[in-house]
Amino acid sequence: MNYLKILEEITLELKSYTTVGQVTNTIPELAKINPDKFGIHLTTIEGDDFGIGDSQERFSIQSVSKALTVALAFSFLGEKIWKRVGVEPSGTAFNSLIQLEYEKGIPRNPFINAGAIVIADMLVSCLENPKEDFLRFIRLISGNPNIDFNLSVAQSEKDTRFRNAALGNFLKSFGNIENDVDEVLDFYFHQCSIEMNCVELANAFFFFANEGKTRDGKSILTTSQVKRLNAIMQTCGFYDESGEFTYKVGLPGKSGIGGGIVALYPKNFVVATWSPKLNKKGNSELGMHALELLTTKTEMSIF
Amino acid sequence: MNYLKILEEITLELKSYTTVGQVTNTIPELAKINPDKFGIHLTTIEGDDFGIGDSQERFSIQSVSKALTVALAFSFLGEKIWKRVGVEPSGTAFNSLIQLEYEKGIPRNPFINAGAIVIADMLVSCLENPKEDFLRFIRLISGNPNIDFNLSVAQSEKDTRFRNAALGNFLKSFGNIENDVDEVLDFYFHQCSIEMNCVELANAFFFFANEGKTRDGKSILTTSQVKRLNAIMQTCGFYDESGEFTYKVGLPGKSGIGGGIVALYPKNFVVATWSPKLNKKGNSELGMHALELLTTKTEMSIF
Amino acid sequence: MNYLKILEEITLELKSYTTVGQVTNTIPELAKINPDKFGIHLTTIEGDDFGIGDSQERFSIQSVSKALTVALAFSFLGEKIWKRVGVEPSGTAFNSLIQLEYEKGIPRNPFINAGAIVIADMLVSCLENPKEDFLRFIRLISGNPNIDFNLSVAQSEKDTRFRNAALGNFLKSFGNIENDVDEVLDFYFHQCSIEMNCVELANAFFFFANEGKTRDGKSILTTSQVKRLNAIMQTCGFYDESGEFTYKVGLPGKSGIGGGIVALYPKNFVVATWSPKLNKKGNSELGMHALELLTTKTEMSIF
Amino acid sequence: MNYLKILEEITLELKSYTTVGQVTNTIPELAKINPDKFGIHLTTIEGDDFGIGDSQERFSIQSVSKALTVALAFSFLGEKIWKRVGVEPSGTAFNSLIQLEYEKGIPRNPFINAGAIVIADMLVSCLENPKEDFLRFIRLISGNPNIDFNLSVAQSEKDTRFRNAALGNFLKSFGNIENDVDEVLDFYFHQCSIEMNCVELANAFFFFANEGKTRDGKSILTTSQVKRLNAIMQTCGFYDESGEFTYKVGLPGKSGIGGGIVALYPKNFVVATWSPKLNKKGNSELGMHALELLTTKTEMSIF
Repeated sequence: MNYLKILEEITLELKSYTTVGQVTNTIPELAKINPDKFGIHLTTIEGDDFGIGDSQERFSIQSVSKALTVALAFSFLGEKIWKRVGVEPSGTAFNSLIQLEYEKGIPRNPFINAGAIVIADMLVSCLENPKEDFLRFIRLISGNPNIDFNLSVAQSEKDTRFRNAALGNFLKSFGNIENDVDEVLDFYFHQCSIEMNCVELANAFFFFANEGKTRDGKSILTTSQVKRLNAIMQTCGFYDESGEFTYKVGLPGKSGIGGGIVALYPKNFVVATWSPKLNKKGNSELGMHALELLTTKTEMSIF
Repeated sequence: MNYLKILEEITLELKSYTTVGQVTNTIPELAKINPDKFGIHLTTIEGDDFGIGDSQERFSIQSVSKALTVALAFSFLGEKIWKRVGVEPSGTAFNSLIQLEYEKGIPRNPFINAGAIVIADMLVSCLENPKEDFLRFIRLISGNPNIDFNLSVAQSEKDTRFRNAALGNFLKSFGNIENDVDEVLDFYFHQCSIEMNCVELANAFFFFANEGKTRDGKSILTTSQVKRLNAIMQTCGFYDESGEFTYKVGLPGKSGIGGGIVALYPKNFVVATWSPKLNKKGNSELGMHALELLTTKTEMSIF
Repeated sequence: MNYLKILEEITLELKSYTTVGQVTNTIPELAKINPDKFGIHLTTIEGDDFGIGDSQERFSIQSVSKALTVALAFSFLGEKIWKRVGVEPSGTAFNSLIQLEYEKGIPRNPFINAGAIVIADMLVSCLENPKEDFLRFIRLISGNPNIDFNLSVAQSEKDTRFRNAALGNFLKSFGNIENDVDEVLDFYFHQCSIEMNCVELANAFFFFANEGKTRDGKSILTTSQVKRLNAIMQTCGFYDESGEFTYKVGLPGKSGIGGGIVALYPKNFVVATWSPKLNKKGNSELGMHALELLTTKTEMSIF
Repeated sequence: MNYLKILEEITLELKSYTTVGQVTNTIPELAKINPDKFGIHLTTIEGDDFGIGDSQERFSIQSVSKALTVALAFSFLGEKIWKRVGVEPSGTAFNSLIQLEYEKGIPRNPFINAGAIVIADMLVSCLENPKEDFLRFIRLISGNPNIDFNLSVAQSEKDTRFRNAALGNFLKSFGNIENDVDEVLDFYFHQCSIEMNCVELANAFFFFANEGKTRDGKSILTTSQVKRLNAIMQTCGFYDESGEFTYKVGLPGKSGIGGGIVALYPKNFVVATWSPKLNKKGNSELGMHALELLTTKTEMSIF
């Protein structure tokens, strides 16, 4: 398949696509971004790379990081992580407290904020130097030692933390946070502030498509574990729009309000897109459309 | 009316009443209380006093304080307090976040925790030394300069603050808290920790029954304002059991998880009860029953 | 007190009150009404009558009838009616199914539609000829043998019954309807279609203010029972605006989407108003305002 | 792959699996079934058949039929069906009215009851003889002219219809049912009453795995359309347990309270299981476990 030609076609078609979305305004530091950026990078399981546009410019990965923290927690703790967080779609917005109240503090899945905060708490408990160790993990799986937190973004998230602080304290009131809430949130804000470009993200998610092994062969998770996380990404990776993404794109993936999306076709490829304008559900408008075009043109969806 | 005889009858009847309730376990410091305490004190508008049982032993007034903070905020700010908190019954438990999420951070009424935290925020904004000034107000209306916070109870509430911290941060995320969340909660935990006995409580609430004037004639609120706060106590004063209390007792009132209840018959009397065992809705089991007996025996309900 | 002068003042003040409400459009037959009608009638416990405006023109009493069906059911069945319907404010709109789902088919109170349908089911079970017998009861308490159903309104409600049919079937699925759903709804639509004017309504509700006895001395309920129903009207009589009505007016009452409101001051008076324009919560806009003016001017609220 | 051997292994392992589930009691006629039945049948895309146990005994397909009605509606109406029903997981139980109330009568997806009733309404509108035509469609795709409704099951569902009648009327109140509610429910109860065995079900669902073409080559839907329905089965096919099924089994599928489950691996195989004992979420306990064993043993999940 001539992926480069397809990526070029997609980029061309997107130029005539009228966007209505907005750059996130929930975190002041992120609101400064140039809204017209667009990049896409695809890495095949054989190791071929195809990129176009702003695919080498870094951006804030935000919730895309949730797939990586859950992978790290899963590698440490195995199936027992599901005692504290579920694997079901939430049916409500990503930062809702309602489901949490009805379900006694067990978040529906690790990709809504509440679930990610519980996963962060697990990592704070089992990592010696949580932030440093997680950064080392990201550098390892992406094969890039330069990846780092953006401290001003982390600080900006802290300054506007109230909704997440509500979630953290609410979880703590149900006994589902072990550590100090502020310490857990500090870790969470740092994980979200990590900056990567599309190439680095495609590399970092390579092991999800490659039966648990990174591009340079390091084993992160078992085949079975990776299948399971891919399954959760499929049903829960796009907040309240997971069904729509599954319907239109048909690949497991994870999005972030920085405008990034990573999706993957097991045993075939990983693809990362970046475009900061978000639709009403908080997912990158052009990114979702680009991936829909990709699976339509290649006829490569898992369904 | 021979109130003393009626209070004696009530006390006698309560002895054969089988309780199933429990002392609160939400605040460790309060869990230590002797569950068998019972006191009741009634003060008529003419200034006659009738008390029995443990009516002169102090206890933690807890949410009973919410009626006093809203009165103080009302005296400072007038009707505009209702822009930030409603006057409708909540239909859900006292510390629910659900209604708050659907209603964009405007608590249903000032007697659920979220509403009381917003009122606390108002007082933190308009009092120079919030804790000291509020204490002075309590001493003024009750005519007793010895009333004080119980600092170990306040600390105990702080140590188990997570649900309230979730509420405070959630309100802040909707822009309905002006001050620092921790500072507001500190005030809130102190107001709840105030210790009073039944006599003192009946005195403190005297102005609600006396067209806004304290027992010694100081004017706190206008007649119209007091009627309005009595109305809110009637519909919202007993959490999710306000309708039941209105149905059975038929007087405006306010309860607290320390086991205290104050109720009043405008232009007639104020009555305070104390018994630490709470029913499932968080209201004093014997206190509710005592007041039901009182209005049945005296045929003095507002309906 | 010169009630006539006060009613005249109120009527005058209402002329300069800018209404924003709308006549109900939920039932086509009711949408035809002249929106500018306004009438008010007050009957004192001593038997003096004061009326003004369109107080002698009949209108559809709609949900005002719910206070009368619950009174009749209470007279037959006593306290056991509360096993199938609660006495708590609902916290959600009058026709909501949500609370019903969480609370397993027990409506919060007899004044939301679900609760009134359960009460209707009780009457269908205990009356020999339900519709005729209920009409006879209305004629008895109002002292007027000409009061009747409006059959075209009843038919119009049947034609647009889907929300109520949903409620009826939902209640039946929880086992809280004994009879055929369609038969119960037929009774319910007829009870709502009854037409009365303000004078007749004030007469019909006289027993609520008169310790259970009608204007001509017939005993309908005991003093204690009437107090209890007044209490429920206070906390639940105005749907999701009951707190607001209690706050502003301070009297127990019941409204209907036909634009009628009845309120009463126990042992003092009954007052009925009619104005078809409804506010967003479904209560008569001018009627609520007229009653607020009444209790402000007379200083006669129960609080 | 030696599928027969694998099915034998699975059957053997299931014998030592302790079930805790119950046969459905929601429909009296279905409660009569022998709870110990178990059958499984797998058909490969190449046309090889492997069956074991009670795989040739018919049972009530119930909600499995929802995948077939949506396929038929999709073939008639195309993408516009999604204006009246969504493609998102529901996050609440299969027959919940709550989400429907918040989302103004648009069911979350076609596999919850509300969504299936809307799809049934579409078919009642576009089929000349709805029940007969739908039966003809089932016979066509399964290649079996003997498949039929079980009229006593359909009648049993009608007799206990109240929850579904609530849903139908509720949808109608939002304008999302075009036809008479009873007529739509009659169709719906008949579609659910269809009886098939595992072999027939595997044949009927063959086109979902075969790019839209039945086993004997008839084109039902386009490749793209089939992918999209598979996607919805993946995210929504198992009610409130869809995430769990995706996590453990990793194949799109659809279950029914008759104990049947169909799952499929696009371009590879279709598998149908039957065991009447249901877990708490309403899915066949042994069926779910059998399919988990199948994808574990074959390592054939789409992830």
